[in-house]
This record gives sequence, structure tokens and C-alpha cells, in this order.
Amino acid sequence: MTYAKRDFPLHAVRQHLETGPIILITSQHGSRSNIMTLGWHTMLQFSPALVGCYIWEGNESRDLIQRSGECVINVPTAEIADQVVEIGNRHARDGDKFEATGLTRRSGKVVAAPLLDECYASFECRLYDDAMVANYGFFIWEVLKAHVASVEAPRTLHYRGNGTFMAAGRELSFTERFRPENL
Amino acid sequence: MTYAKRDFPLHAVRQHLETGPIILITSQHGSRSNIMTLGWHTMLQFSPALVGCYIWEGNESRDLIQRSGECVINVPTAEIADQVVEIGNRHARDGDKFEATGLTRRSGKVVAAPLLDECYASFECRLYDDAMVANYGFFIWEVLKAHVASVEAPRTLHYRGNGTFMAAGRELSFTERFRPENL
Repeated sequence: MTYAKRDFPLHAVRQHLETGPIILITSQHGSRSNIMTLGWHTMLQFSPALVGCYIWEGNESRDLIQRSGECVINVPTAEIADQVVEIGNRHARDGDKFEATGLTRRSGKVVAAPLLDECYASFECRLYDDAMVANYGFFIWEVLKAHVASVEAPRTLHYRGNGTFMAAGRELSFTERFRPENL
Repeated sequence: MTYAKRDFPLHAVRQHLETGPIILITSQHGSRSNIMTLGWHTMLQFSPALVGCYIWEGNESRDLIQRSGECVINVPTAEIADQVVEIGNRHARDGDKFEATGLTRRSGKVVAAPLLDECYASFECRLYDDAMVANYGFFIWEVLKAHVASVEAPRTLHYRGNGTFMAAGRELSFTERFRPENL
């Protein structure tokens, strides 16, 4: 299944990342491209929309990400759990991950790295601050362009370790109990 | 409902934080204590176990956290969603949050901030690096002691914005598909 995504307001990006889903990071530098899975990330600011990600130095995508200073954060759901597991357990030397998983690349508007059509949300990012990269492998990204499909309650994947994921469960609304300034 | 927690290995803390749950951070400095809700956090390292958290400078807990250089990260579940919402929407000037919510304080082993009995996991933390606090409000914590109750699939809460949470859903196991070094 593929998603037709639309422009999405940057200040609301948190709605899709704060829950802590496993994300698929795509990267491109020259003719080289790659996909990686990543679970260690956090929102850092609403506007500009900043996201911090830990990327292990042994990861094959890191070189492309550092050279290009760009990436796309894609949010997969349980429908493509198989491909997410495949990406996380495959080396780039085993062959192209786009081909191996059949995921569909789509050109972004701002960065060279591709969006993935099978993910309901994709965020084009540019490196904003690398001050924490040397000590912690922590990259701070600015989301420059957000693309999100209208999906009521996306069944995102959340990694528990040991090869086990938790799929997003039911929604609990407390909107009427929130102070307006906290919404 | 309260949980009897046991010592938990520090290298496995990721199992309870990587999924991206809303956490309750307790703090103590002298006779002052507080609780806050927080959703912007990430694992940063396995060993020592490092966790990064964004704490807004307007947050009333931040002063206690900075003065003491300590905190406890507690992980609540859907059973206490009401109290989580109360904590997130109450000012310290409205009165003591422990009293208002009825949550039970328990002394930790290492830090002065209290553990919460109604949370199935509590992590005693000491400030490890404040280099990112001035620019980003990003605190890097070392987990010094982990306390976790044996709960099969904790129904953690994950914030979607607009007063709405996603409760942790069902487990998907792919253990047999993982490379051993990736588990």
C-alpha cells in the first residue's frame, strides 16, 4: 500500500514523531543512497521544527548523511513491518535496500534523499547542528518540508528490543481536560 | 494500582524508553519536590545508559532539576492516564502535585527525588552532560539505578498532541528474523 501525502504544517510535526515510532531514514549523496531504521530520536523544538537523532558511527548510512548534510525521516506502520525488519537486519553490502524491500522512492522538494511512498509521513531534513555528533552521534535536524497522508490512527511501530515491536494501540482523548495553552 | 519493582539491568533500560512513552519526571531539591510530564526524550547510549530529555525553561521542575542535578524518570501506563493529564495541566502554584494526584512517593537508592509506586518502571538519574542545556534545553542523564516491575506488555501512553494519547498496542515479534548481533 502506498500513501498520497500532502503538505503538512511544520509546527505540527511533533504529532507524528513524539509518540516514539521506529523511523526509516533515507539518505542520498551523489549516486549513492541508503535506508536505515532508527528508534533513538526526539523532538527538540516546535519552530523551526527540530528533531534530534542518534546515529551509530558503524551505520552505513552515516557517511551519506554526513556528506550530504541531509536526510528524509519516513514513518512506517505495521503494514510494512516485514520490510522494516529487513532493512534493520541487512547490510548495504548485501545489495540495494530499496530493491530488496520493494519500497518506492519519490523525489522530495528540498533534499536529494528520497521519500518512501509506503510510509504515511515523510519529513525532508537538513542538518541544523552537528555539535553533538563527535561525542554522542547525535544529529540535530531541521524539518524543512513535511509530507503527511491523512491517516486517522497510524499503526506505527515502536521497538522494545529483542526483535519485538509494539504496534500503536487505541486513542485516548483528554482534549477537554487540557488547558488551551497546553494543546 | 501500585507495582513492586525489582532491580533491572542498566544496559536494558532501552526496552522501556525507546518506544517513546510519556514519562513522569520527579525532582527534589531540599524540601521542594515536583512532578512533570515529558514526551521529548531519547536513548543516547547503552552503557553507561544515557537518556536525553528536552525540558522547557518555563517548566517549574527545571529549577529543581538543575539545582539538584538529579531526577527520577518514571514510566506511567494507561491505568493512571487521568493523573498524567492532571500533572501536565496543573501549575505547581496550584498546590502539591503528589497530593493532588494521590501518587505514592518511594525513596530511591541513589538520588533524593522520589520513585512513584503507580509507575511500573522508575530510573534514578544523575546529570551527565549539560552542554546542550543553554541552546536546546536538552539534558543528558545517566541512569544510575533501574527499578522495573515484571509487566508483560505495559500499556504505556504516547502523546499525539491536541490532548490525545495513543496507548501501547499489541506486540509483534520478529526475533527469529533478527541477526543475533542486532538483538
